[in-house]
Amino acid sequence: MKMLINSPQTVVADALRGLAAAHPELDVDAEARVVVRRDARQGGRVGLVSGGGSGHEPLHAGFVGPGMLSAACPGEVFTSPVPDQMLRAAKAVDSGQGVLFVVKNYTGDVLNFDMAAELAEEDGIQVDRVLVNDDVAVTDSLYTAGRRGTGATLFVEKIAGAAAEEGASLAQVAAVARRVNEASGSFGVALSACTTPSKGTPTFDLPDGELELGIGIHGEPGRERRPMMPAGEIAEFAVGAVLDDLATSAPGDGPVLALVNGMGATPLLELYGFHAEVARVLAARGVPVARALVGNYVTSLDMAGCSVTLCRADEEMLRLWDAPVQTAALRWGR
Amino acid sequence: MKMLINSPQTVVADALRGLAAAHPELDVDAEARVVVRRDARQGGRVGLVSGGGSGHEPLHAGFVGPGMLSAACPGEVFTSPVPDQMLRAAKAVDSGQGVLFVVKNYTGDVLNFDMAAELAEEDGIQVDRVLVNDDVAVTDSLYTAGRRGTGATLFVEKIAGAAAEEGASLAQVAAVARRVNEASGSFGVALSACTTPSKGTPTFDLPDGELELGIGIHGEPGRERRPMMPAGEIAEFAVGAVLDDLATSAPGDGPVLALVNGMGATPLLELYGFHAEVARVLAARGVPVARALVGNYVTSLDMAGCSVTLCRADEEMLRLWDAPVQTAALRWGR
Repeated sequence: MKMLINSPQTVVADALRGLAAAHPELDVDAEARVVVRRDARQGGRVGLVSGGGSGHEPLHAGFVGPGMLSAACPGEVFTSPVPDQMLRAAKAVDSGQGVLFVVKNYTGDVLNFDMAAELAEEDGIQVDRVLVNDDVAVTDSLYTAGRRGTGATLFVEKIAGAAAEEGASLAQVAAVARRVNEASGSFGVALSACTTPSKGTPTFDLPDGELELGIGIHGEPGRERRPMMPAGEIAEFAVGAVLDDLATSAPGDGPVLALVNGMGATPLLELYGFHAEVARVLAARGVPVARALVGNYVTSLDMAGCSVTLCRADEEMLRLWDAPVQTAALRWGR
Repeated sequence: MKMLINSPQTVVADALRGLAAAHPELDVDAEARVVVRRDARQGGRVGLVSGGGSGHEPLHAGFVGPGMLSAACPGEVFTSPVPDQMLRAAKAVDSGQGVLFVVKNYTGDVLNFDMAAELAEEDGIQVDRVLVNDDVAVTDSLYTAGRRGTGATLFVEKIAGAAAEEGASLAQVAAVARRVNEASGSFGVALSACTTPSKGTPTFDLPDGELELGIGIHGEPGRERRPMMPAGEIAEFAVGAVLDDLATSAPGDGPVLALVNGMGATPLLELYGFHAEVARVLAARGVPVARALVGNYVTSLDMAGCSVTLCRADEEMLRLWDAPVQTAALRWGR
């Protein structure tokens, strides 16, 4: 498998050097592997820190900046960052208002962020933690006890980041982050496996003519394999799975935020075509779409496929979603 | 080859339905295949219209909006749009100040935009045309007399779009667009071929362990094939080729706008790592980077690889580059 890299060992460090070169507005420590918005400590805001294995870009470093994350800690590819990174990030962003860790529910991430929270608290930093576990496809998984954290991470980081930017307290930022996670569900499909730089061959085997329904963002097994389906049928399956779940976890008839997220190798042309089918299914089920986002945001290296994330958003969430954001991967407003 | 589509025949129409659903701020005519910013006729601005074959998304429809294109005309995959689309677009955006067609240098696009210009002028619309031909890899090609138009299209559309937004005249908008094209050069590399929906198999054969240097955005042959190279060597080759060309076409020691553009299937993690090497090579050659952009902007469906575009930008170009833009794929400022 050919890759545009120098060596598998330097992939993450090289990407961080590139991020620093392209984004002078970020403070990138390529050695310690912490990405911080330069003005993180100004303004007396709550700090918002996330991180996780690399290979899901632009998540998380691409979401660091005004209105979203204060800092991100990238681990090795598909491997949790270590507590020291998170502790450094917490120290770099805390202005005395406390720090919220946004943690995707994978065993390694959960353990390491918990340890970092303890260390930060020993250093006098107030820390709260919100767990993102939006993937409705499976409970428990290769790397997870309970549901996996996937696309809703973007919703949580954007909306909680806007709350922090407005000056909300740590308790308030944590509360809205939890509400967003509880109101969200995701479902992913893979048309191909992905290849990690260190392995160099596909991480699993997906035969020609089959797709995997309910795939995880590291290629963890989903619900089932089926013969390849047209986009419309995939949308019905994925949206149906999410709506069935939200019917219990976030009942109501309010509008949704919709994310059609590419896994990495699926052309944007196809993602927009897929979004047309997602919008059709939602309309048929009487679910209004308040805002939609289509593109590659929570990826799995070069996997082909996509995921759908829906968040049944209340008015405050929508207002915070619309608030200005200035990051490498997500920008709007002033 | 599995694709996230309904059928090869409906790929472009489906994507336009999805674009309409996700972006209510755009006026999308999925049948006539014209995408127009809703307020195109307000403000008495020069209209900026582009288009070309689909499969290069977000180019061009993703660049329609305040500060960039007034309208875009998507053709079938890798196939020029027809004059009727361009004429409709010109009529939809002309407010009496005239319309500039931004045309990538491919034979079909050139002929069809020329025909549309004649038709529009018969209808009393003043039209000028700028040809984008930035690809330094080859002169003449499978679909081109002269050099191909690739990544610099983004620079031309952004900078000319900002000039139009400011109220520049048709002659002024055309002049800055031509200056940007003349000051720009691009070089692409492919690690894999792409697969069009209608063909269903890769459009060319690129053996394991080889890369193609100088590839076109439809997979047209480049300069040469070599055994796979590390990212640093690829950056040296590509940046060297562009700088050698600019030494004649845009001499000087001013700063550059740099675009590291993904062809579609190469992970953002790799693109940022590649950008680190591009920045290193530019620094070694004494070329300051004024602004950098890294991501998938001028793609070739699911091709793996990337291109580098450099534009030796003067102060006016940089000012217009920094001006606010509000499109699906490129947004910053107010």
